[in-house]
Amino acid sequence: MTRERLYLYDTTLRDGQQTQGVQFSTAEKHQIAAMVDQLGIDYIEGGWPGANPTDSEFFASPSQTKATLTAFGMTKRAGRSAENDDVLAAVLNAGTKAVCLVGKTHDYHVTHALGISLEENTDNIRASVAHCVAQSREAHFDAEHVFDGYKANPDYALQAIHAAHDAGARWIVLCDTNGGTLPSEIRAITEAVIASGIPGDRLGIHCHDDTGQAVACSLAAVEAGARQIQGTLNGLGERCGNASLTTLIPTLVLKPAYADRFETGVTPDAVRGLLRISRKLDDILNRVPQRSLPYVGASAFAHKAGLHASAIAKDPSTYEHIDPAQVGNARIVPMSNQAGQSNLRMVLADMGVAVARDDTRLPAILDDIKTREDAGYAYDSAQASFELLARRALGQVPVFFEVKRYRVTVERRKNKYDQMVSLSEAVVVLKIGDEKKLSVSESMDAEGHDRGPVNALAKALAKDLGPYQGAIDDMKLVDFKVRITQGGTEAVTRVIIDSEDGQGRRWSTVGVSPNIVDASFEALLDAVTWKLLRDGVRPCPT
Amino acid sequence: MTRERLYLYDTTLRDGQQTQGVQFSTAEKHQIAAMVDQLGIDYIEGGWPGANPTDSEFFASPSQTKATLTAFGMTKRAGRSAENDDVLAAVLNAGTKAVCLVGKTHDYHVTHALGISLEENTDNIRASVAHCVAQSREAHFDAEHVFDGYKANPDYALQAIHAAHDAGARWIVLCDTNGGTLPSEIRAITEAVIASGIPGDRLGIHCHDDTGQAVACSLAAVEAGARQIQGTLNGLGERCGNASLTTLIPTLVLKPAYADRFETGVTPDAVRGLLRISRKLDDILNRVPQRSLPYVGASAFAHKAGLHASAIAKDPSTYEHIDPAQVGNARIVPMSNQAGQSNLRMVLADMGVAVARDDTRLPAILDDIKTREDAGYAYDSAQASFELLARRALGQVPVFFEVKRYRVTVERRKNKYDQMVSLSEAVVVLKIGDEKKLSVSESMDAEGHDRGPVNALAKALAKDLGPYQGAIDDMKLVDFKVRITQGGTEAVTRVIIDSEDGQGRRWSTVGVSPNIVDASFEALLDAVTWKLLRDGVRPCPT
Repeated sequence: MTRERLYLYDTTLRDGQQTQGVQFSTAEKHQIAAMVDQLGIDYIEGGWPGANPTDSEFFASPSQTKATLTAFGMTKRAGRSAENDDVLAAVLNAGTKAVCLVGKTHDYHVTHALGISLEENTDNIRASVAHCVAQSREAHFDAEHVFDGYKANPDYALQAIHAAHDAGARWIVLCDTNGGTLPSEIRAITEAVIASGIPGDRLGIHCHDDTGQAVACSLAAVEAGARQIQGTLNGLGERCGNASLTTLIPTLVLKPAYADRFETGVTPDAVRGLLRISRKLDDILNRVPQRSLPYVGASAFAHKAGLHASAIAKDPSTYEHIDPAQVGNARIVPMSNQAGQSNLRMVLADMGVAVARDDTRLPAILDDIKTREDAGYAYDSAQASFELLARRALGQVPVFFEVKRYRVTVERRKNKYDQMVSLSEAVVVLKIGDEKKLSVSESMDAEGHDRGPVNALAKALAKDLGPYQGAIDDMKLVDFKVRITQGGTEAVTRVIIDSEDGQGRRWSTVGVSPNIVDASFEALLDAVTWKLLRDGVRPCPT
Repeated sequence: MTRERLYLYDTTLRDGQQTQGVQFSTAEKHQIAAMVDQLGIDYIEGGWPGANPTDSEFFASPSQTKATLTAFGMTKRAGRSAENDDVLAAVLNAGTKAVCLVGKTHDYHVTHALGISLEENTDNIRASVAHCVAQSREAHFDAEHVFDGYKANPDYALQAIHAAHDAGARWIVLCDTNGGTLPSEIRAITEAVIASGIPGDRLGIHCHDDTGQAVACSLAAVEAGARQIQGTLNGLGERCGNASLTTLIPTLVLKPAYADRFETGVTPDAVRGLLRISRKLDDILNRVPQRSLPYVGASAFAHKAGLHASAIAKDPSTYEHIDPAQVGNARIVPMSNQAGQSNLRMVLADMGVAVARDDTRLPAILDDIKTREDAGYAYDSAQASFELLARRALGQVPVFFEVKRYRVTVERRKNKYDQMVSLSEAVVVLKIGDEKKLSVSESMDAEGHDRGPVNALAKALAKDLGPYQGAIDDMKLVDFKVRITQGGTEAVTRVIIDSEDGQGRRWSTVGVSPNIVDASFEALLDAVTWKLLRDGVRPCPT
C-alpha cells in the first residue's frame, strides 16, 4: 500500500510564543526543539532572528535537530531590494536550511495596513522568495489572510501566492490568520487554489482556533489536497491558539481514515511518548495541564458515567475511541478502585514492596490517596511522598525525629546604607532521640541578597540533624515548584520540591497548605525522611 | 429571506455533570438552568430523575424556564414492559414535557454489553418511545454509538433508529458516544440516515471532543441536514467534554454561512451576554476560566504580535474575525518585550494617555519593560502594573504613601490542645502624609485556620490606609498566581495578583523577587496604588 507523504511543521517556538503569558528563554527553546524533534516532526520554526534578543540568541547557536530548522521572517519592504532589506538579511543570516516568509495576500491589507500598491506587494513576494532560493534556501511562503483575501478578491489572492510559487517556493502555506474561517470554506478555497495550478503537495495549512475548529480546518485542507500542516504543541499560539499538533498527530497516525492514506515522519512508537511531551511543555511553562485535552488530557480516558464503567470492565473498546496506551495515557475509572489496586501493587513492587493481592491495606491506601489528592496533593509528580505514604500505611517508616516547632520571619526595612532590603530568618526546633536541637539560619546568597523564607527554612532544617547529619550532607534542593490549586487568596498552595544527592538520585516530594511556607516545610520534611529511609539510616531510639 | 429553524439542546446539567471533578448541587442546577434559559436555548436537559438524589431533587421542584425542560433516562430493560420498568417510571414521573431516552444502536453493544438479542433491543426502543408518546410527552431518542454502530452494521443501526422514529420520537439524536468519529464520517453517515427515510428536521447531533472536533462534527451534521444540536456550556462533559455551546452559538448566530441559513432561539443581543454566562459557570464550579477559549476566553482577542497590533490600530477587523463586543469580550494588546512602539501607544491611548508618535519616553518605557521582563516580570498578564510603570515614566503617578517597613512571621507549634498548628502574623508600617501608621494582622479564616503569610500581609496593608481607606474598602483579591521563573531553590519568584472592586473592575499586578513574600508585597502595593489612581484619589501632601 503506497501512502502519500504528509509533512508536519511545528511553530511552537514562534507562533506558540504569541500565547498570552508565554515567554520562552533561549534554554527553554532548545529544550522544546529537542522534544519536537523526538516526535519526528519535519520542520521546526525556531523564531524570528533579529526580531528579539531571545530568538537571535537561539539561532546564534541553533539546536541540532533531525528536523529542518526554519527561520521565520517577512517579505521585504517596498522601496528597497531584497538584498538591501536589513530585516530580511537578519533572517537569512541565521543560516538555516529553510526560511519561511510571511507576506500579504489580502488586497485590503496591502492597500490599507501596508499602504502600498497591489503590484508592489506582489513584487515584494516574488523578489523575497527568489532571493531565498538564490541563496539555496528551501523557501516557504506563509500566505497571510489568504482565506479572507480570497473571499474579498480571489484574483489578487491567487496572483500573490502564484508569485511565490513561480519564484520557487517549496511550500505555499495557506494561513487563516484571523482564525474565523470555517472548515467548509477552508476546503473549498484550498480546492480552488489547487485548481488554479498550485499542486497540493506544494500547499501547507496554518489554522487558529478562534471558532474551536483549528484541527478540523487543518484536516479539511488535507482532504482538499494540502500536504503540509503547521501547528503547535498543546495548541499554544496567538489568541485562542494554533492547530494543536498534540491532537492532530494521533488523529493522523492512529485513525485509519488518515493513517491508511498518509505517511508522516511520526511513528506509532513516537506517539506513545506524546503525553510525556505534552506534560513536559506544561512543566516548562508552569501551566496546569488541561484535563480535558484530547488524547493526552488526564480526563481523556476517565469514565465517570456508571453505565460506561461497567461496560468497560467487559471490553474497554465499548467506550474508548483508541487504546489510551497508544498515546502514553491511561484509563481512569473514578468510582471503581479495582483497576487502582493492581496499579498500586505494580508501583509498590517497583519500590521493592511486595503486597498480596488481597491485602486489606491496599484499598485504605487508595482511599488515602484519593482524599489527599482532593485536598490538593499530586502524587504523580511526587513519587517519593507517595512512597512514604504507602510505606507508612504498611508500617515501614520509622520516626527519625520530631518537629517541635519552627518560626520564619520575613522583614523589609532600611539597611545601614538607607536602602530598603528584605531579610529572612528561620528557627527550627527538633527532637532527635531524647535530645532537643535548635537551629537558626538566615537566607543570604553569595552576593548578600535575601533568597526568601523557604530557603532559610531549608537551611535551618538541614543545619544540625545530629546523628543523621552525615546522611543528608550530600543532599541538595534542585527545583521548587509552586502551584495554587484553587482560586482566591485563600487558595491552597501545592509545593513540589525536587532533591538530589551525591549518588545522583533525584526525588520529588509534595506539601499542601493554605500557607505556602508550611506547604514547603512539609515537602522538605518528606525529602529528608525519604533520603534517610533510602539510605537505610537507623533511627535513634526515643 | 426565510431561514430554517435550528434547535439547540443544552445537556450541561446531565452530560456536563460527567466532567471529572464536577458535581452540581441542586441549587447550582437551578442557577445554571436560568443562565441557559437567558441565552434562548430550546431544550434544557435537567438530569436523570431517579439516578441520584440531586437530580431527583431538581425535578421535584423544577426550574421555570421558557426552554422545554427535559428529563433524561434510558430505554426500558428487556423482560418487562415499558409500564413496569421502574427506572423508566422514575423518568416519566418527573412530569416534564419532553423526555430523552438513550438506547443502543450498535449491534456489538447490544449483544455484548447488554447481552440481549438485537430484536429485543429494537423492541425496547419502540416500546419505550411509544410509552412516552402515549403519555403525551415529546419523545427524544439518544441513539448511542450510532456512528460506530453504523460503521459496524449499518442495517441494524438504521433499524434501531427507525424503530424510535416510527414509534413517534420527535427527535432522533445521533450520538458519537466515544467521540472518535471524524467530521467527514459524521457528514456521510448523517446523509445516509436522511437517505434512509428519517428527515433532517427530526435529527439531532451529540458530539464529544475526543479528537478536538466536537464543534466541527456538530456543524458537519447540520450541513448534512440535522436540525438539532446538543451541547454544553464551556464544553463540559464526559472525558474531553461535549460540543461547546459557548463556541457553537456565536458561530451559528454571527457567521453569515450559518446565520443567513438558520434561525435559532438565540438573539444577537443574548450572545452579547455570552462571556458573562461562561465566566459565571466557572465561578460556580470554582474553575479558573480558560484564557484560550474561542470567543469568550480572556486571550481570544489578545494581540501580542507587534505586526498585528500596528494594523489593528488602523482597523481592528484586520486581525479580528468578529467584533469582540458581539460576545461581550474586549480587545487586549498585551505589552511584552516583543511589542513595538505602536503597541505601546495604543495601550496608552486605551488608558486615556495620549503620547506623540515621536515622544522619546516611548523607547525608554519599552527598554524598561524589556529589562524587567528579563528579570522575571510578565506585563502581558499584569496590565495594571504595566500602566503604573508607563504612567510613572510619564510622571503621572503621585506618591500616595511610603512603606517604611514590614515584617511577617510564620510559626508552626503546638496549640493549647497539643495540636501542631501554623500561625502567620504581619506588621506593616506606612507613612501617609506626615503620619506614621502601624497595622498588624494575623491570617485566620472563619474556621480559625491559618491562610498564610501573604494573606496576613494583604490584610495588614489594607487595614488602615487613613484618608484612602474609603477608596480601597470595596477592593478584594480574587486570584493569586505564583511562578518560579528559574530552577533551584534560589530561583526568582513571580507573583501575579488579580484584584476586583465594587464596580466590577478587575485588574492584575505583578511582583518579582527571590523572596516569595516580598514578590507578593510588591504586587499588593501595585494593586492598591492602581485602585487609588483610577479612582482619582488625591494624595496627601507630604
